[in-house]
Amino acid sequence: MNPETIIAAHDRIRSYIHRTPVLTNRTIDALAGAEIHFKCENFQKIGAFKARGGLNAVLQLTAEELRSGITTHSSGNHAQAIAYAARQVGAPAYIVMPRTAPQVKKDAVRGYGAEVIECEPTLEARETGVREVMARTGAAMIHPFDDDRVIAGQGTAAKELIEDAGVDRHFDWILAPVGGGGLLSGTALSVHYFSPETKVMAGEPEGAADAILSFQSGRVEKAPYIDTIADGLLTNLSDRTLAIIRQHVTDIKTVSDPEIIAAMRLVWERMKIIIEPSCAVPLAVVLKHKDLFVGHKVGIILTGGNVDLGKLPF
Amino acid sequence: MNPETIIAAHDRIRSYIHRTPVLTNRTIDALAGAEIHFKCENFQKIGAFKARGGLNAVLQLTAEELRSGITTHSSGNHAQAIAYAARQVGAPAYIVMPRTAPQVKKDAVRGYGAEVIECEPTLEARETGVREVMARTGAAMIHPFDDDRVIAGQGTAAKELIEDAGVDRHFDWILAPVGGGGLLSGTALSVHYFSPETKVMAGEPEGAADAILSFQSGRVEKAPYIDTIADGLLTNLSDRTLAIIRQHVTDIKTVSDPEIIAAMRLVWERMKIIIEPSCAVPLAVVLKHKDLFVGHKVGIILTGGNVDLGKLPF
Repeated sequence: MNPETIIAAHDRIRSYIHRTPVLTNRTIDALAGAEIHFKCENFQKIGAFKARGGLNAVLQLTAEELRSGITTHSSGNHAQAIAYAARQVGAPAYIVMPRTAPQVKKDAVRGYGAEVIECEPTLEARETGVREVMARTGAAMIHPFDDDRVIAGQGTAAKELIEDAGVDRHFDWILAPVGGGGLLSGTALSVHYFSPETKVMAGEPEGAADAILSFQSGRVEKAPYIDTIADGLLTNLSDRTLAIIRQHVTDIKTVSDPEIIAAMRLVWERMKIIIEPSCAVPLAVVLKHKDLFVGHKVGIILTGGNVDLGKLPF
Repeated sequence: MNPETIIAAHDRIRSYIHRTPVLTNRTIDALAGAEIHFKCENFQKIGAFKARGGLNAVLQLTAEELRSGITTHSSGNHAQAIAYAARQVGAPAYIVMPRTAPQVKKDAVRGYGAEVIECEPTLEARETGVREVMARTGAAMIHPFDDDRVIAGQGTAAKELIEDAGVDRHFDWILAPVGGGGLLSGTALSVHYFSPETKVMAGEPEGAADAILSFQSGRVEKAPYIDTIADGLLTNLSDRTLAIIRQHVTDIKTVSDPEIIAAMRLVWERMKIIIEPSCAVPLAVVLKHKDLFVGHKVGIILTGGNVDLGKLPF
């Protein structure tokens, strides 16, 4: 991976995505004592940054590969991202989803014309489901994060944030949440290539604290326990994402669910925009560790806005 | 009132307000069969368009008047608008609020440095409260809608919408909700002056259907009953707003609370922005009367985003 990889990814996907706005809010700045620029990927196609990585992978498949279609397993935004990307290129998509996934998410995937294959809600069942699809159709599998094409695509969000926030003063920090590490490693690479003075911080829920352990030990670790509202961040890292994160991320901080919910509520009430709980994790880090960020120019990637309005934590 | 009144209002308030964005959404356009441009006053200062009218009135007070301060009664966005405007000019503000108003709204008003005077939740008690403030302080009263300065200020939102949506093709319709009629009459005047080919439609809740009766009879009527989630639209018109509305508004349509909530949910889920129930009324009208709007270019003023997240209708 080099700067040209991300530049090429951006050129490749540009006409299929929104260049999402970068918003600021005086009340939140006053609370944090910092100058925060929010990159609003909640306004992205499919309602989340994952459209970027999915498109960058799908657009590199050959015509022959596209004929056999694309598959993945996901209960969330990656499912929609692959379904959306497949539709853009006219390829069939086969999405393996746990039968427990919300009906609205299954409907959204079907809405993009993809076939939904339901399975039991275990990683084993999901992987078996994908293998069966591949055997039946010859579809190409696109992993949600353990894939350089996906990582480069996700990195284009930070590239835009860096470009749009102006060159007068570089960011002191850019923050992203960490689940499997696709967004975080793409963000860290973009910062390394395009704004090398900037440090990268990740936020992780206390109730899915695998990345902070892996970051410390240097091996992919599991979380001691899983119990968090930030349901987009439950996945472990891969060797690939961990290596990039260990090289280019300054630190990872954890926050509790009450801290995540308070940050989410602050964004809803003050910015009047809808963000997912997972997406509030970096702001919760900034508000918890004010000493680290006070007086600084801070970029935060707001990753998505796909919430179930029937199950809000307020 | 003439075009110059609204142009002057816009020049007067411009540096104190946000030029709010105009957003579009393909899913909602497909549902409506129309091309809808949403003017996002939920992103305005204080979270609602009322900052415009309040500022336009306050900025026309003399230095001597400002010394005695400003007063109004309001349970909602107008209270914050006057408190915000008073702070901009360094004048004291005395806001009479029903004691039953949400604590968060009282806190917001106090947060702008205004004095909150609590009263019983009746119109009589509110008006008495204001008279007592005026006797005590000599403060100038700014009515939430029965005031040409306020009407002209509210009209600047439609003026911006008309300017920003481009001149290639004029709006067929611009819609606003109607409560006391300040926004609707200002909108109708701006459309009359700056986009005379465009028709204006108002949306009103079935459970506060006074404006439609007044529009038909030509006199200010009361609603047959009050029962709606759209708590920003409970007020009757005044003679002043009714006269403008009768002259420049094509029609008023009512919608039920389930229709309002469905439209609100659609905006939250698809546009990822937070709007008040009152603010979803025009979109509910467009979705209910598709035949009127199909194939048309439609502007909708999204009036505000101040919702109590603890009391959502989902």
